[in-house]
Formats: sequence, structure tokens, C-alpha cells
Amino acid sequence: MFRNFRMVSYIVFGRGSFNQLDDILSKQRNDDGSIMVFCVDDVFKDNPFKERLPLKSRDLLMWVNVDVEPKTSYVDLLTKQIKDKAMGALPAAVIGIGGGSTMDIAKAVSLMLTNPGSSADYQGWDLIKNPAVYHVGVPTLSGTGAEASRTAILTGPQKKLGLNSDYTVFDQIVLDPEIVRGAPVEQWFYTGMDCYIHCIESLTGTYLNAFSKAYGEKALDLCRQVFLEGGPESEDKLMMASYCGGMSIAYSQVGVAHALSYGLSYVLGLRHGIGNSIAFDYLEEFYPEGVAEFRRMLEKHRIDLPRHITANLEEEKLNTMIDVALILEPLWENALGKDWKKIMTRDRIAELYRKM
Amino acid sequence: MFRNFRMVSYIVFGRGSFNQLDDILSKQRNDDGSIMVFCVDDVFKDNPFKERLPLKSRDLLMWVNVDVEPKTSYVDLLTKQIKDKAMGALPAAVIGIGGGSTMDIAKAVSLMLTNPGSSADYQGWDLIKNPAVYHVGVPTLSGTGAEASRTAILTGPQKKLGLNSDYTVFDQIVLDPEIVRGAPVEQWFYTGMDCYIHCIESLTGTYLNAFSKAYGEKALDLCRQVFLEGGPESEDKLMMASYCGGMSIAYSQVGVAHALSYGLSYVLGLRHGIGNSIAFDYLEEFYPEGVAEFRRMLEKHRIDLPRHITANLEEEKLNTMIDVALILEPLWENALGKDWKKIMTRDRIAELYRKM
Repeated sequence: MFRNFRMVSYIVFGRGSFNQLDDILSKQRNDDGSIMVFCVDDVFKDNPFKERLPLKSRDLLMWVNVDVEPKTSYVDLLTKQIKDKAMGALPAAVIGIGGGSTMDIAKAVSLMLTNPGSSADYQGWDLIKNPAVYHVGVPTLSGTGAEASRTAILTGPQKKLGLNSDYTVFDQIVLDPEIVRGAPVEQWFYTGMDCYIHCIESLTGTYLNAFSKAYGEKALDLCRQVFLEGGPESEDKLMMASYCGGMSIAYSQVGVAHALSYGLSYVLGLRHGIGNSIAFDYLEEFYPEGVAEFRRMLEKHRIDLPRHITANLEEEKLNTMIDVALILEPLWENALGKDWKKIMTRDRIAELYRKM
Repeated sequence: MFRNFRMVSYIVFGRGSFNQLDDILSKQRNDDGSIMVFCVDDVFKDNPFKERLPLKSRDLLMWVNVDVEPKTSYVDLLTKQIKDKAMGALPAAVIGIGGGSTMDIAKAVSLMLTNPGSSADYQGWDLIKNPAVYHVGVPTLSGTGAEASRTAILTGPQKKLGLNSDYTVFDQIVLDPEIVRGAPVEQWFYTGMDCYIHCIESLTGTYLNAFSKAYGEKALDLCRQVFLEGGPESEDKLMMASYCGGMSIAYSQVGVAHALSYGLSYVLGLRHGIGNSIAFDYLEEFYPEGVAEFRRMLEKHRIDLPRHITANLEEEKLNTMIDVALILEPLWENALGKDWKKIMTRDRIAELYRKM
């Protein structure tokens, strides 16, 4: 059985295409006066970009905080606030504007407005029962591929795991390379590395087919152009790399770096992009060429990767880290084959974590 | 304004994925006993593949003939036959199984079942008013990109022009590289060249952006692998090349070869793929590297391109050919810029046609 891959329904790509958001949303506005909800990264709170949001009088603007990665409790809180403010009426749209975390929050909220209970109940695969509210993704950082994926990754009480479902996929994405400007260099770099590492993992994995290979190769090619060559089209290219990376996941998987990164995020609260980079740097035995190239990218952009972050970690926390990493069985199997459990023991994972 | 590009809703890719068609369709079957319509290229009429069609008792199997390119009159006839046989009930699905022409027929029929009048009334851009019947595309030849596009190209009483609309896009495509086997070498080659030429035209055109460039480059890369190197993955790669070629059209256009090919098809009844190839071979001044590479492909696969097809053409027919080619203004503008009318006069087009 091959996955029947749900695609984003509408995509607009181009410098300045953010200006079309108002027009796009107007087609979804109902005569009954229902509102729209804008979930926007709060880094834009004091930014002139705020003035460009196409809000109508009764729309809700929710500044979302993603200093830490999104939690199920945060999604539940936002959903409750929206329900209270909308007084029982279902919003006509949820629009997520920000990086991968903000887009994941928008996806999750749009699902939780129509599905009962806590978002923690839906961490897993195809547990969502009802279609989401119409939802739009507008990335302001490139690399995570969240704009194309069928997941909304959340940290819950027991695990970091996405709400994976066909209903999670955005109805519309707006890819405007102009609005990714202005992020700090490290954030730009680590988010881009999410895409780069993802491509290395999927292209060397055991799950690949021609569909995912084509997308993965193109994303990798674009990442190399952006991070080793640079140039005026870099914003456009990284935005396409991110999208192609997200598409490549249809018939592939990520691997060792992503699995270890989930443990780092869960226990140490590290952001996903930096977590991937920290883990990847110690994975030369699994990805020799990728790690060598990654180090050239680090050097070119003078990125000082954090070291010794697990130096004083208690045994119990290390064990939790290992538990969280081991939940991600498809990632290990993709990287190491069906017999991965013989290769990747708890001791070996502990040894890798202790180096970081 | 950037085009808000409508994507295919679901895509399944993989060797043997055709076996999932029954399961996919079962989710669309209604309890009211409505039927599904299979439009299948009649080359499969005496082929064992016929036994694999997941027909239910009341479903309609329409063998479609594409010895000539699809005409609006043929689409109107098929639509009437379906309406008569379904006795007023709307079919739950239309499934097109074949090459680009068959897929275009399935798209057009699914539109004409819900839109009044003749399909000739809708040749153009965004003239379709009502959503189509749920429709599925299953390509059995790779290269045209019809599986990904928002058009259904038809030859009408006045012109060869597509039904271009968001409703034209397939709800589902099934990309199974196993079922493209068995086509004659020339058909395989010319259909693949549709994709190759399309990429050369779009990548050297004036309309390109990073989205279409990424898709176009990947399609071109895959075409080169297939037609210059070959190898066991060629079917998979050409299927992805075709899909990426179709996607690249979102923000790009084809060019001189396609424009001239439309005239050849309209007047001489030539198939699109061979028409492109015949025209392209005389376009060295516009696409020097592409034409040189194309000739290496011709040679490698020992393809004997038809020559002197316009040798005895009456003046009146030549004029019609020029008229049909000139309708396609966006293609000329993409290839030659805003001032294309100064460059590409009727005389110059006539001169090119007379060489063919």
C-alpha cells in the first residue's frame, strides 16, 4: 500500500503575493458575519508588518508565542479562547503566519475547533475524526516544510508527536519570499538546516521512491545553492527548498538526527532546527558526506554550534531523552533498516547523546 | 498578481498503486446506487489490463478513441451518452485511464456533466461555472503533464484551446510506473519529448519564477536521465518528470515549439507530441542547446522524424496554421518578450512552417 498523499489545495508563490491574502480570504468570508482568526508569531507584535495583516473589524488577532515549541496545553488554551470570543460560532478561517511552530499551532487550532477533547488525544496517526476549519499557512521562515506536511507537531504530556491526518493539511498556502527577510542569521540558518538534514536523511534512507527522491534531490540542490553559494535569489530558493522538502516526505522519512533531536527538544526544550543541527554534527558514521558538507555550511556562515549541552544531565533525564527518541520507530527503520533495534541500542543512543 | 494555483487533491505514486484504485473509488461511492464512468483508451480493449479495471455492476465503461486528438464534438457526444445511460442521475465519478488525450477527455466530460451547452463554449480561461463531477486521472503514458494541469485541451470548430479552470484539475491521480509499459517506442519517445521540449521552453522563457524553475529543472534533469542514460528506474523517472513538468506550468509557459505544434495539429491532425518534435527540430535559433540535445536523443533512440510534411500544403491551410499558432499569445510573449509581434511576423512563421 502506497500512501494516498493529500496535497495543499491552493498555492500561491511570488514576491509580494502576501498582498493577495485579503482577496483570497474574501472568497471564504460568509454573509453570516463569521470571523477569521489570525495566529501570528508575536515577534511581529512591534513590527510594521503588523499593519499589512488583512484583518476585518470582528476578526481575532492572536499573537502566538513560540519561544518554546508548541505544547498541546497551549493549543487547547488558544482553542478555548477562540471559542469564547466567537461565542459558539465557528470561525470561517484560521490563518497561521510565522515559522513552522506558528503554522503547526494554526493547523492544530483549526482541527481542535471541530474535534472534541484535548489536542493530546490526537497525537498520532489519523486519529482526527472531523474536517478542520478552512486554514491558511503563511511561512515567514523557510525550512521546516510545515507548509506542505500533513502533521502539526506538538509536545504533549507524554510525548512530542504530531497530529498527523489528511485534515491537517492546509487548504491554502501563501509563499512570499519577501516576507522571510529580517529573521536573525542563526534562526535562518538552523531552520534552513532542518530542510538540509531532512534531505540527507531521506535520500540515504531505505523508504525512498522516485516521487520522494525527485523532491528530495531538488530540495537538497536548492539548499546547497543557498548555503554554499548564496546570491540574490536565495530567499526564493530556500522557500522552494522547504516546500520540496515537505513534499518529499510523502514516501520517505527522516532519520537519526531527527529522532535524536526530538529527545533533545522534549527534555532540554531545544528548538527543532538547532536540535537537528546539534545531533547531526555527531552523526558522521551514518551520514559522512552530509556531515562534512554541513560543517562547510557552518563555517561559511560562522555559526557557533552549542556544545556540551548534555554535560550535566541527570541519568533520569537522559533516559527520558532516549525514550522519546525510541518512540519514533519509522525514523530508525528508515535510517537503519528493519533490524534497527539490533544496531541502535539504548546504550548506543546514550553514548551519542553524551557527546552532544 | 500571481496565480493562485489549484493542486490535485490526492496523489498516490508507486509501482502497483493502480491496485489501490478500487479502494480509493469505494470512498466516493454513494449509497444511492449512482454509477461511475471509466473513460479508457481503446488500445486496452483487447489487452489483459482490461481485467484489472475495478468496475462495479452498473458502472459504465467507455472505450475512448484518441487516434485523433480530442474534439469538442466528441466530448459532447460522450457526455450525452453518459447522461442517457445514467438516466438523469449524476455519476459519482469519472475516471480517465490513458495518455494525455484520454485524461483530457475525462476532465472535459466531468466538467460537461455539470455545465450546460457544448464544450466548445468553454474553450478559454475560467469560463467554467460549476464544479465538475469527482474525477480521477490514471496516466498510462508519461510526458504530457495532463495529470497535474488545469486544462483539458480540445480541438473545437474554431480553435485548438483548453478548458482552463480550477475545476478542471483532477481530484485524484494514480501514478503507477508499472502501467506505462507496453507503449510503442515512438509513442513513448514523442510523449516524453512533450515534457522535454516544454522544460526547455519554460526554463528559457521570460515568465519564470523560483517555483516553476525548481519544477522545470527537476523535470529536465529526469528527462535527461531517461533519454540519454536509460536504466531500470526510467519508467518511474519519466512519470515524475511528467508530473513536475505539469507543475512547472504554474508560473511559466511553453514557447515557440508548442505554438507552432498547435497549428500543425489543427490543420494536419498531427498528435501533439510528434508535432512538438517536428517543430522543435527547426528552432535552433531560439533554443540552440536544447535542439542539439534533442537530436542526440533522437539518434540514441533511432527515431526517424517525419520530414516535408508541409511540402504540398495549400496557401489557405498554411494561413489557418499561422492563425491557430498566433492565437497563443502568452506562449509567444513568454518565448520572445513583450515585443514578440515585431519578431514573429506571419511571414516568419510561414517560413518556419514551410521548412517542416
